[in-house]
Amino acid sequence: MFTGLSAFPLTPMNETGIDEVAFTRLLKRLTSAKVDSIGVLGSTGSYVYLSREERLRVTQLAVEYSEGIPIVIGISALRTREVRQLAEDAQKAGASGVLLAPVSYQQLTDIEVYSLYEMVSKSLSVPLCVYDNPTTTHFRFSDELHGKIASLQQVRSIKIPGVPNELDTAKERVKQLRTLLPRDVTIGVSGDPYGATGLNAGCDAWYSVLGGLYPDICLGITRAALAGLSESADNQSKRLEPLWQMFQKYGSLRVVATIAGMQGLTDTPNLPLPLQGLDEVARQELKNILSILKNEISLP
Amino acid sequence: MFTGLSAFPLTPMNETGIDEVAFTRLLKRLTSAKVDSIGVLGSTGSYVYLSREERLRVTQLAVEYSEGIPIVIGISALRTREVRQLAEDAQKAGASGVLLAPVSYQQLTDIEVYSLYEMVSKSLSVPLCVYDNPTTTHFRFSDELHGKIASLQQVRSIKIPGVPNELDTAKERVKQLRTLLPRDVTIGVSGDPYGATGLNAGCDAWYSVLGGLYPDICLGITRAALAGLSESADNQSKRLEPLWQMFQKYGSLRVVATIAGMQGLTDTPNLPLPLQGLDEVARQELKNILSILKNEISLP
Repeated sequence: MFTGLSAFPLTPMNETGIDEVAFTRLLKRLTSAKVDSIGVLGSTGSYVYLSREERLRVTQLAVEYSEGIPIVIGISALRTREVRQLAEDAQKAGASGVLLAPVSYQQLTDIEVYSLYEMVSKSLSVPLCVYDNPTTTHFRFSDELHGKIASLQQVRSIKIPGVPNELDTAKERVKQLRTLLPRDVTIGVSGDPYGATGLNAGCDAWYSVLGGLYPDICLGITRAALAGLSESADNQSKRLEPLWQMFQKYGSLRVVATIAGMQGLTDTPNLPLPLQGLDEVARQELKNILSILKNEISLP
Repeated sequence: MFTGLSAFPLTPMNETGIDEVAFTRLLKRLTSAKVDSIGVLGSTGSYVYLSREERLRVTQLAVEYSEGIPIVIGISALRTREVRQLAEDAQKAGASGVLLAPVSYQQLTDIEVYSLYEMVSKSLSVPLCVYDNPTTTHFRFSDELHGKIASLQQVRSIKIPGVPNELDTAKERVKQLRTLLPRDVTIGVSGDPYGATGLNAGCDAWYSVLGGLYPDICLGITRAALAGLSESADNQSKRLEPLWQMFQKYGSLRVVATIAGMQGLTDTPNLPLPLQGLDEVARQELKNILSILKNEISLP
C-alpha cells in the first residue's frame, strides 16, 4: 500500500463544516485515475483543524467512495490520548492504514516521540506510515530514531520531507536511510518539487499534494520513475517548475486550495480560518501559470 | 490587570483528566502571595492539550478560587472557530481578561494573524493580551504588526518573548516597541530568565512561569524592579541562574512540572502525554540545584 503514488486530497470546508459534496468530487478524480493509495486527512487535508467527529465523517466518506483503493488516514494530534482515539476511529471505519506525525506545541524529545509511536503501534491492526514533516511538526527526526521507530510493529513506511536536489546525493541519502530500516518498511518522498528526484533516487512512494488534485499528471511522473525512465520523470516534473515555485513561495496547501476553488471543484474559500487562500496578486500569478501549463500538459 | 507579576500555574493532569485538587492547591499559593494576576491555561497550563470542556472547567475553578485576583484565560487554538468558542466560554465563566497566541500548524501570514485578532477582539467585552511566543507558535511578529494589532479594540497588553540580555539594549528594545503602541497597551516580558532585565528595561509586567509555582520569589523581583531598585531585582534573579539554565536546557514547563511533583504539590506524572517530566539524570541535577537554592533563598 505504501508504494507508488499516494494522493493527498484537500478536505474542503467552511466555518460551518466539511463540504462533503466537494470532498467526494475530489475523491472521484483519484479513484478514476487509479492512484495507488489515497492519503486522507494529511496536512493537505487540514486534519489538525478538524474535530474528532469531523475527522470520523471524512474517514467514513473516503472509505465509502474508495472503489477498492487503499485509504490511509492521518491520525496525528497534539496529545497521545487523542491519537489513540483517532486510531481507533480510523480502524473501525475501515481505513487500510494510518499516518502519524509527531505534532508538537512544546518541543518534543526523541524519547517522547519514540514512546508515542510505541504506544500507538501496539494498539494498531493496520499498517502505519511515519510522517516526518519538520515544517509543520517542528520536530526533526534523526536517522537513528527513524530506524528505532521503523522496527516497531505495524510500521511499514516513512514519509520523508524531500531529498537533496542533486540525483546522486539524493540516491546516497535514500540508501543511507534504508540501511537502518527493516526490509518491509518503504520510503516515500514528500514535498512535491522533490517527487521525481525522490523516486528516481530510489524512494518507493511519492506522498503527493498535487496528486490529490491532478492525479494523472503525478501518476505520469510516478510510473515513469518507477519504470526506470528517470529522464522522462524528471522532464515531466521540470515542466511543473512554475507550480513548484508557487508551492515554495505560498505553501502547497494554499496553492492547491486556491486552484481547486478557481477550477470550480470546491467553493471559495475552502480553508479553515485563520488560513486564507492566496490573495489577488498571487491568484493572478497562479492563473498565468495554469494558462501556460495548459498548453504544455493536460491541465484543465 | 496587565501590570506587575502575572503568575502562570500548571494545569496538573493525567491521561484521565485534570487533577482539580492539585490545581486549586497551586491557585491557593498564588492568591495567598497576592500576585497581580493569574494567567490560567497559558503554555505552562498546557491549554493546547485540553478539550473545550476541560478548559471550561479549569476556567471555572480559577474564577471560583481567585479571591479577587484578576484571572486571565488563554483562549488560543489552531482554528479561529475554536478561539471564538473559547473566548465566549471564558467570558461567560467570569474571566477578567484573555490571552491569545497565533498558534500555527500551517505557517501563518501577517494578514491571517491580523484577521484572527480583529475577528476575536470584536466579540470581546474583556481586555486581551497578545501572546507572542515564537518557540511554541512558530509565528514571528514584526513590530509593525504588533502596532496594528495593539490598536484593535480590547487589546491592552503584549506578552513579548524576552528582551536582550544587556540592559541598555533591552531598554532600547522596549522603548522602540512602545512608540508603536497606544498608551493604554502594556508590555510584559516572558521567558523567566529575562524577567528582571525586562522589568528593569521598562516592561510593565512579567508573565512568569516560575511565578506560578514560587510566587513570593518572583514577587520579590517584580516589586524591586518596579520600585526602581534594579540592582536588587537583578541580584535576586541572578541567584536563580542555575534554575534559568535548567529552563533553557529542558524547557520551563518540564522543569516546573517536575519540581511540583517532587515537592508533593501534584502527583507524578502531571503532564499530558506525549510530554514527559524530566528523566532521572535531570531530576538529580534539579534536586541539587534546589538544595543549593534552599540555603540561598527561601525555597521549600
